[in-house]
Amino acid sequence: MKSIYLTKIREQNPLIHNITNIVAANFNANGLLALGASPMMSASEEEMVEMPNLSQALVINIGTLIGKEQKAMLLAGKTANAKGIPVVLDPVGVGATSYRRETVRQLLSEIKFALIRGNAGELATIAGETWQAKGVDAGQGDVDLKTVAQRVAKQYGCVVLISGAVDVISDGVQTATVHNGTPLFPKVTASGCLLSAVCGAFLAVDEGEHFAATLEACVAYTVAGELAAQGLTTQVGQFQIRLLDELAALSPEMIVQKGRINE
Amino acid sequence: MKSIYLTKIREQNPLIHNITNIVAANFNANGLLALGASPMMSASEEEMVEMPNLSQALVINIGTLIGKEQKAMLLAGKTANAKGIPVVLDPVGVGATSYRRETVRQLLSEIKFALIRGNAGELATIAGETWQAKGVDAGQGDVDLKTVAQRVAKQYGCVVLISGAVDVISDGVQTATVHNGTPLFPKVTASGCLLSAVCGAFLAVDEGEHFAATLEACVAYTVAGELAAQGLTTQVGQFQIRLLDELAALSPEMIVQKGRINE
Amino acid sequence: MKSIYLTKIREQNPLIHNITNIVAANFNANGLLALGASPMMSASEEEMVEMPNLSQALVINIGTLIGKEQKAMLLAGKTANAKGIPVVLDPVGVGATSYRRETVRQLLSEIKFALIRGNAGELATIAGETWQAKGVDAGQGDVDLKTVAQRVAKQYGCVVLISGAVDVISDGVQTATVHNGTPLFPKVTASGCLLSAVCGAFLAVDEGEHFAATLEACVAYTVAGELAAQGLTTQVGQFQIRLLDELAALSPEMIVQKGRINE
Repeated sequence: MKSIYLTKIREQNPLIHNITNIVAANFNANGLLALGASPMMSASEEEMVEMPNLSQALVINIGTLIGKEQKAMLLAGKTANAKGIPVVLDPVGVGATSYRRETVRQLLSEIKFALIRGNAGELATIAGETWQAKGVDAGQGDVDLKTVAQRVAKQYGCVVLISGAVDVISDGVQTATVHNGTPLFPKVTASGCLLSAVCGAFLAVDEGEHFAATLEACVAYTVAGELAAQGLTTQVGQFQIRLLDELAALSPEMIVQKGRINE
Repeated sequence: MKSIYLTKIREQNPLIHNITNIVAANFNANGLLALGASPMMSASEEEMVEMPNLSQALVINIGTLIGKEQKAMLLAGKTANAKGIPVVLDPVGVGATSYRRETVRQLLSEIKFALIRGNAGELATIAGETWQAKGVDAGQGDVDLKTVAQRVAKQYGCVVLISGAVDVISDGVQTATVHNGTPLFPKVTASGCLLSAVCGAFLAVDEGEHFAATLEACVAYTVAGELAAQGLTTQVGQFQIRLLDELAALSPEMIVQKGRINE
Repeated sequence: MKSIYLTKIREQNPLIHNITNIVAANFNANGLLALGASPMMSASEEEMVEMPNLSQALVINIGTLIGKEQKAMLLAGKTANAKGIPVVLDPVGVGATSYRRETVRQLLSEIKFALIRGNAGELATIAGETWQAKGVDAGQGDVDLKTVAQRVAKQYGCVVLISGAVDVISDGVQTATVHNGTPLFPKVTASGCLLSAVCGAFLAVDEGEHFAATLEACVAYTVAGELAAQGLTTQVGQFQIRLLDELAALSPEMIVQKGRINE
């Protein structure tokens, strides 16, 4: 395991434009700041053409759509594509309702994504697999997640990160798994959303190496989670605060030393 | 004091659909996760018919209405009624403006609620009593809260929970008071909203025993607050984090042992 | 350094109406509660005429405009002007896009503000100076901030607070600098927004002494930050929680003793 991009984030302090939801907005902005990036949370249709010209990456999260954000997402996504900055999709709860499925279908058809980051249920839905999703939670099903990741990656020409107890990353050719993390992650709301935002920061500085950057982002985030969870059992409140502390304290050395990946 | 429903929440992990506000969204989702329930925060009109079919309870909170949520509330509420899942109303700051009063009047006339949870000022307003409300805070007045709770419960055929230093619960026939809690609760924003969401989780698993479930919810939440406040004086930040920790650590035994109720 | 207004806030518990964004809403409400004020977060156009009649100050924050808030801001601002309560403007990221510049231009032309609180980049933009802003962050430029503060204060007949490593406060005649603070402030999202809200609470009780009240607000907030940062290096999560604790624990004596100002 190498660490290339964390240092670049701290050096370049990239501006990450997030179109996100009312649950994740504060936590994601704080997580990006802790990491060393500069968050910009905006979904105003009126500034979606200018914003990608100021930013180094765009993260689209469909968590709490109330209608107007959808237009903003399409506009910002297309402008980001035209400018050539990476766009990350977090298809929150896409399996839950037909409205979410249709929203994601439209985003995937009109925007070229660099990365899709979701849980098993969300990616299974995008892959067209049968899956018992449960709201925005992962739910359960019986599909091979590596196959799902590879198939979706090939179909949309992007990197896919399926996060869970084991994280699966694929660009359709290379596939890797990350074995870091803690059971406290799914007990903190928007911790998946924050991983998507963190990936946005890594992709912002990767000069096109999206697979390697996603892998490092995933290890960085899950190692920070492991460190934050040390000595904790059920303390979900403390975990959430410590996660921000550990993202700020994280060093390339910790990523190299603690990362547990299979490529 | 018995504890029946906390264990059921942990076993069944019910999906609680929250239509809530930008202040409470993150804290309430984390509180529900800590407790053992599964939060879904959505106010998209487009999915309000599907969402109640996936959920085991609906919590409607009028905290920061910006127009579109109102339609979503009515649609989700009616669908939840048709499906037969319990619906909780949190009439945040209903006494503050005529817009809030009219919103709550309409919700109460078109949706059948299982529970109305508010502070003294909010319930006094619904009961038509004179009360000096102060924004979203309780304010002050000189009415007998038991009488208010009973009257509102009878009028709307639901359980009423008036929270404050002493919490009053009534279904119009039975009335109980809960004497747990801490003065730090009103110093944390959305701590009332979270109580409403927690009640939603208890009602989701109660098989129609709404009075008993509300009573246990109220004791569970206020006991968690007491435990969180131990050793604290003015540390409102730490209290907020510890409250999440204690909701996660709470056991049926603690509810039985520490609950102080008068029935 | 004197402390006059903190005690008045605790005695009068003023209601502060905030039209704010999805990132800051929860943190600002908790910060105001910690300080001793009573927050009301609402952007519903339908109650913007009634709300200023209940409140002692209005804080307008343009952080995450999604269109409808703008009408609400104008309506609430004009009503607040008519009633005579102080109005604070936080022009978040005004330099970032033409939409934000136009929004702020309109607010400044139609509403009389008591205070404009922003970072160097935001105030330089309002002053018409060349400045390299970076999203919502301060960015960098080469202007004399005292001159900027004085000029904007004169132009709009209000107090200006430019926050940064050194905070500059001017009403066009008097100018002061505050030298308290911690490098952890810019690592916590919405910490600038919260300073604006805190200023709102001080102005709510100042009986027209806006310069003195802004000065005390700024010292109070930055001293609380210093105390919160004691013993911390990179722990941005803990800092955020401790800041709330310190705002609640803050005394007039600490303001007098620890305030470092140049007038």
